[in-house]
Amino acid sequence: MPIDPNAVGATGDPVRRSWNSKDALLYALGVGAATEELAFTTENTRDVPQRVLPTFAVIIGGGGAPFGKIGSFNPAMLVHGEEGIELFDEIPVEGEIESTGRVSAIWDKGKGAVVEMESPSVNVATGKPLLKTRMSAFIRGEGGFGGERGPSVKFEAPSRKPDHEVTYATRPDQALLYRLSGDRNPLHSDPSFAKLGGFDRPILHGLCTYGFTGRALLHTLCGGDPARFKSMDGRFSQPVYPGDSLTVRMWVEGSECTFQTSNQDGGVVLDQGRMTFA
Amino acid sequence: MPIDPNAVGATGDPVRRSWNSKDALLYALGVGAATEELAFTTENTRDVPQRVLPTFAVIIGGGGAPFGKIGSFNPAMLVHGEEGIELFDEIPVEGEIESTGRVSAIWDKGKGAVVEMESPSVNVATGKPLLKTRMSAFIRGEGGFGGERGPSVKFEAPSRKPDHEVTYATRPDQALLYRLSGDRNPLHSDPSFAKLGGFDRPILHGLCTYGFTGRALLHTLCGGDPARFKSMDGRFSQPVYPGDSLTVRMWVEGSECTFQTSNQDGGVVLDQGRMTFA
Repeated sequence: MPIDPNAVGATGDPVRRSWNSKDALLYALGVGAATEELAFTTENTRDVPQRVLPTFAVIIGGGGAPFGKIGSFNPAMLVHGEEGIELFDEIPVEGEIESTGRVSAIWDKGKGAVVEMESPSVNVATGKPLLKTRMSAFIRGEGGFGGERGPSVKFEAPSRKPDHEVTYATRPDQALLYRLSGDRNPLHSDPSFAKLGGFDRPILHGLCTYGFTGRALLHTLCGGDPARFKSMDGRFSQPVYPGDSLTVRMWVEGSECTFQTSNQDGGVVLDQGRMTFA
Repeated sequence: MPIDPNAVGATGDPVRRSWNSKDALLYALGVGAATEELAFTTENTRDVPQRVLPTFAVIIGGGGAPFGKIGSFNPAMLVHGEEGIELFDEIPVEGEIESTGRVSAIWDKGKGAVVEMESPSVNVATGKPLLKTRMSAFIRGEGGFGGERGPSVKFEAPSRKPDHEVTYATRPDQALLYRLSGDRNPLHSDPSFAKLGGFDRPILHGLCTYGFTGRALLHTLCGGDPARFKSMDGRFSQPVYPGDSLTVRMWVEGSECTFQTSNQDGGVVLDQGRMTFA
């Protein structure tokens, strides 16, 4: 049975998720923050109050995505395509949010379907919107239902030289640490499972690459201040292996930035990046 | 008021502590286990059941040490001297133990007192002894009460060449990860706090060095099998800085091993080491 294109607009049940200081610290270490970023990696450094990386939104947010309402499909055919976050306020060190997922679009790509979900989250303590996540999934074999193709390129990197360029190294065991923030898919840790999936060895979580990239954007464009980080969107275009170096190229216009993240061989791994800041 | 030498034999109230798979994984990463040690760093690798590093005993054990019963003293004058663990069974991936601390000795070192505590722990699920921890603390300024000095050297490294030698590198941010297993003392993370304590920069947790050393012993002498690891004792003799390399030298006789851990400059950081295995 194919994907049901009429599912656009369907919502899931609200989901609550809470987190604490330790969750935020563990996430920060998982995306490579270290001794130079004590605001994100410690909670008791003198004159350095703990703060939360903006991309922690992908860990606490995204709840309640109504995948059960888009028809039946083989989950093994699903690939994470794009991820986006929008921040309406700074994420507190500990808290609880309530998220409601919604099918925002379904596109027919011929060889597959692209399903877009968004999930706004409200800070339970204040009742105010805290953040929103967006994600798209490519589901192989589920296209051809006569729907629209949707946009193929959302943001394009300018041809001029980037305004900023930051390189971070990931570690050979990066995924072992990142996975403790929640995504325990053995594709990122078990060599035999990764081989079954067609990879020489375990690949890094796309959202870990996303987190490294977010750190580069935060420190380069927001002076390290999460309150100035407003949104970030990108498309996963190629697997990253733990140990790869990630170079983030940024083109800035006003308070908007187009970015691209590449590996040490120049292969673009996070493409069509758009970030906004204050 | 000085330390009360008559406190020897005093016990604390039983303390329960539980742990889960994630705690064990986080600890293993904190003491440097990585992609070569998936039994300790993952819970869902095919044909590699999760197991727990023997030195995880220092995280879950040691509860209920009756420091309140040895008289009053300034906690800032206390230095962790020795640490020992004894394992009666393999530590399960998740569980709960009940520990009862006991003052096992108090020595008068003149310039200070050495207080020794031991804490046997029972596996709550089975009612059987699981492990025992031993620790000694040197409390500056609390000696001179006319007590015995106690033994000054417990185990000595033989003069012959070691039978085995293993070197592991720690990372500049090792302490930031290790501290998430529980010891958040800013001496290990806050540069300004470390300076107040007389150190150029934050020092590594002694028990992190202990964990790196335990991994070297486990893999060299027990073929990586925690069930064969029976006990490990050592004395902290010099601070380690995150980023230091640790070389563990082992002298084996039968099922006993004397060991010493040194930094990259040859300075002994964990001395008078004794380990037993099956």
